[in-house]
Amino acid sequence: MTTTYFADQAWLGPEDGTVHDVTIEVSGATITSVTTGSTPAEGAVKLPGFVMPGLVNCHSHVFHRALRGRTHQGRGDFWSWREQMYSVLSGMSARAYSDLAAATYTEMTLSGITTVVEFHYLARERGGSATSADVSVMDRAVIDAAARAGIHLVLANACYLQADVHGSALSSAQEQFSDGSVSAFLARMDRLRGAESGPEDAAVAIHSVRGCPPPAMRAIAKWAHENDSALHIHLSEQVKENLDCIGAYGCTPAQLCADTGVLGDKTTAIHATHLDGDDIALLGGSGTIAGFCPTTERDLADGIGPARALRDAGSPLALGSDSHAIIDLFEEARAVELNERLATQKRGHHSAAELLTAATVGGAASAGLSDRIGRVAAGYDADFIAVDMNSTRTAGATDPVAATVFSATNADVTDVVRKGRRVVANRRHDELDEVGQRLAEAVQNVHA
Amino acid sequence: MTTTYFADQAWLGPEDGTVHDVTIEVSGATITSVTTGSTPAEGAVKLPGFVMPGLVNCHSHVFHRALRGRTHQGRGDFWSWREQMYSVLSGMSARAYSDLAAATYTEMTLSGITTVVEFHYLARERGGSATSADVSVMDRAVIDAAARAGIHLVLANACYLQADVHGSALSSAQEQFSDGSVSAFLARMDRLRGAESGPEDAAVAIHSVRGCPPPAMRAIAKWAHENDSALHIHLSEQVKENLDCIGAYGCTPAQLCADTGVLGDKTTAIHATHLDGDDIALLGGSGTIAGFCPTTERDLADGIGPARALRDAGSPLALGSDSHAIIDLFEEARAVELNERLATQKRGHHSAAELLTAATVGGAASAGLSDRIGRVAAGYDADFIAVDMNSTRTAGATDPVAATVFSATNADVTDVVRKGRRVVANRRHDELDEVGQRLAEAVQNVHA
Repeated sequence: MTTTYFADQAWLGPEDGTVHDVTIEVSGATITSVTTGSTPAEGAVKLPGFVMPGLVNCHSHVFHRALRGRTHQGRGDFWSWREQMYSVLSGMSARAYSDLAAATYTEMTLSGITTVVEFHYLARERGGSATSADVSVMDRAVIDAAARAGIHLVLANACYLQADVHGSALSSAQEQFSDGSVSAFLARMDRLRGAESGPEDAAVAIHSVRGCPPPAMRAIAKWAHENDSALHIHLSEQVKENLDCIGAYGCTPAQLCADTGVLGDKTTAIHATHLDGDDIALLGGSGTIAGFCPTTERDLADGIGPARALRDAGSPLALGSDSHAIIDLFEEARAVELNERLATQKRGHHSAAELLTAATVGGAASAGLSDRIGRVAAGYDADFIAVDMNSTRTAGATDPVAATVFSATNADVTDVVRKGRRVVANRRHDELDEVGQRLAEAVQNVHA
Repeated sequence: MTTTYFADQAWLGPEDGTVHDVTIEVSGATITSVTTGSTPAEGAVKLPGFVMPGLVNCHSHVFHRALRGRTHQGRGDFWSWREQMYSVLSGMSARAYSDLAAATYTEMTLSGITTVVEFHYLARERGGSATSADVSVMDRAVIDAAARAGIHLVLANACYLQADVHGSALSSAQEQFSDGSVSAFLARMDRLRGAESGPEDAAVAIHSVRGCPPPAMRAIAKWAHENDSALHIHLSEQVKENLDCIGAYGCTPAQLCADTGVLGDKTTAIHATHLDGDDIALLGGSGTIAGFCPTTERDLADGIGPARALRDAGSPLALGSDSHAIIDLFEEARAVELNERLATQKRGHHSAAELLTAATVGGAASAGLSDRIGRVAAGYDADFIAVDMNSTRTAGATDPVAATVFSATNADVTDVVRKGRRVVANRRHDELDEVGQRLAEAVQNVHA
């Protein structure tokens, strides 16, 4: 099936800037041609507003959505918040998990996100035993959820073997995260890659320098390299992680990653908040992607990461909604710039186009899919969205990229096309209605 | 005319917390009774979602709305941004100003703001002469605009006499800000207070320690005290302002305010960003209200003010959207907490209820109207709003106050009752439709 879309204004990717009168030809799930300065063909589907590539969410822990409106006003810090987060897991069945994930991925879709990298450390159900299936029950839960929501899932299973850098055993709350050994984890990853009913795309993750000892980090990095897989890791979100790492290994987490072969241009360092100059040089010099999650990093009191310095050193930027305190990639994008303004008392560290690049092209690189998503271009997946340029938030702007990044919210996303399917039209999902009600019920179920 | 409203859940003010099954009786513009644990009377208007007092915006420069989507990605700092802001004024007639203000106040109304303190330093039209009318043409522009939008205007005219602490003459871009002398300014304020066609309420303002010399500050403070008027001043938004003040007067702006009688519990220090311990003690000890504008302070790279320390010292907190980079008082409220998390790496400086108090009761104090607005209570203006607790943003929360402050956006405000008139129902303004289009045209007109 072929469909012709037409947009008055669009941003196709970082090279072209804002273009006008754009015809996008789609055959099946793929864009076959993009023509600017065109006139609308008869029967063309006219997209309202400002069109751009579907947004790529480089970092999600989908079940954290159940914490929204429940933990945000707590005192304490990241570590006390983590106890609350673990408590959600205590009664969460795979079925409840899948329903929550479906509702949350639908919220993402409605906010313009067409691809999500799920950083997945739930190896099995609470109390369940290690799986021998090709696709674990928890993997199946998110794979099915993504299909229901119409979102492109990149499933990044994470290896999580120990509670801290001293190799302490996992707590009972953490047991379901573990495959028992790195070899068992990698064997499961091999099976998942070969599975017919696996995720649309897969990546692999090291939970953190806390969660895996250096030999496991090395083995996973080797596996990722051999399998040409994207590799993710939580890096230096907390000062305590750095201090613990230096105490145990005599080097920072970034240096430990460098020493174990983890860094590289298919690797994403999630957070990358507390870095010294050498860390920045290591990440940038290796082309490691920096996966910032600013609304989570402010919610969890992590701090403000050195986004500009990382970009200057050579690291592309990607963006994630992580704990889903908010799901709004425009808010993530502007927060990168606005947080650096707060830290430096200067404006203009990142242009709006650079920030939109992070939310699209940067995310695609982080997902390991630079050749397929993140741009509106021939040969790419037909993933694009429209943003209302005439809402109370956006009206009056001269630069639609700046209006999108600095003024729009998720409420301004009117249309979402994903692999050629118009998943959202006029702010409504094509299959799932009453999404708020679904979210409320799904959240209630995991707390029940 | 009497109307009975009913809400399943409401927050009436900081004393009561969240209450249920609330009947609000309204006669004309005033609440006559509030009853919790009630059953809906026949004919009661049922408000959906979570009901709370109308939000009070303690600081607005309404014409700055014309800069949104046009300057936010600029480089430079506050001072270079100010040049861009001045350039908007060059062609802005009173008529264009009024249309822009009406559209912007409508945007505020739709976002749940029922009262706005307009910090008004446009004494006359560009090129116009000082007015002898009771109500200046620029005052008339905003008074009419507020009536069109259905918002309660507290007009805080600002005295602005000089370009800097050295008493330099105003630049040509600044000339329209000045009444020429503090006595001419205060004579105009006297006439405005006596005018039949004046604003609904008035306050008075000293632009800043830059804009007024100490004798003028003293005269205005005396006038405010004698007239029992709320008094506003921009205070320590920029480090440069502090350095200039210390250079000229040998003391900080806060100390200069203390020395000239400006501080007190009817005074609001807008921004209060760069304060030392003595400044905080002066503001807190005098009960001076701290008027934070976090989304502007991040946009302009001002920095993070000491909100928690000010509150501990005795300063109530109020919130303003100021330059209108964003108009969303929920975002202002959460940013107070989240910015302090970024600065301290700790959570829990302000509870959600404390932040909602700032957006309502704190704003009412800043407006000088603590006995009339900011609460849902008998004898108060019938100003209240409803927030959707079942949107993708808010669904699943157990604490509606936390959901409102930490998760909701302006898109979740469904209903606004202002002085007994239901100005917004189901997210639509009762008189003005196509608000985005109105904003776009009004912004275009002031740039024409």
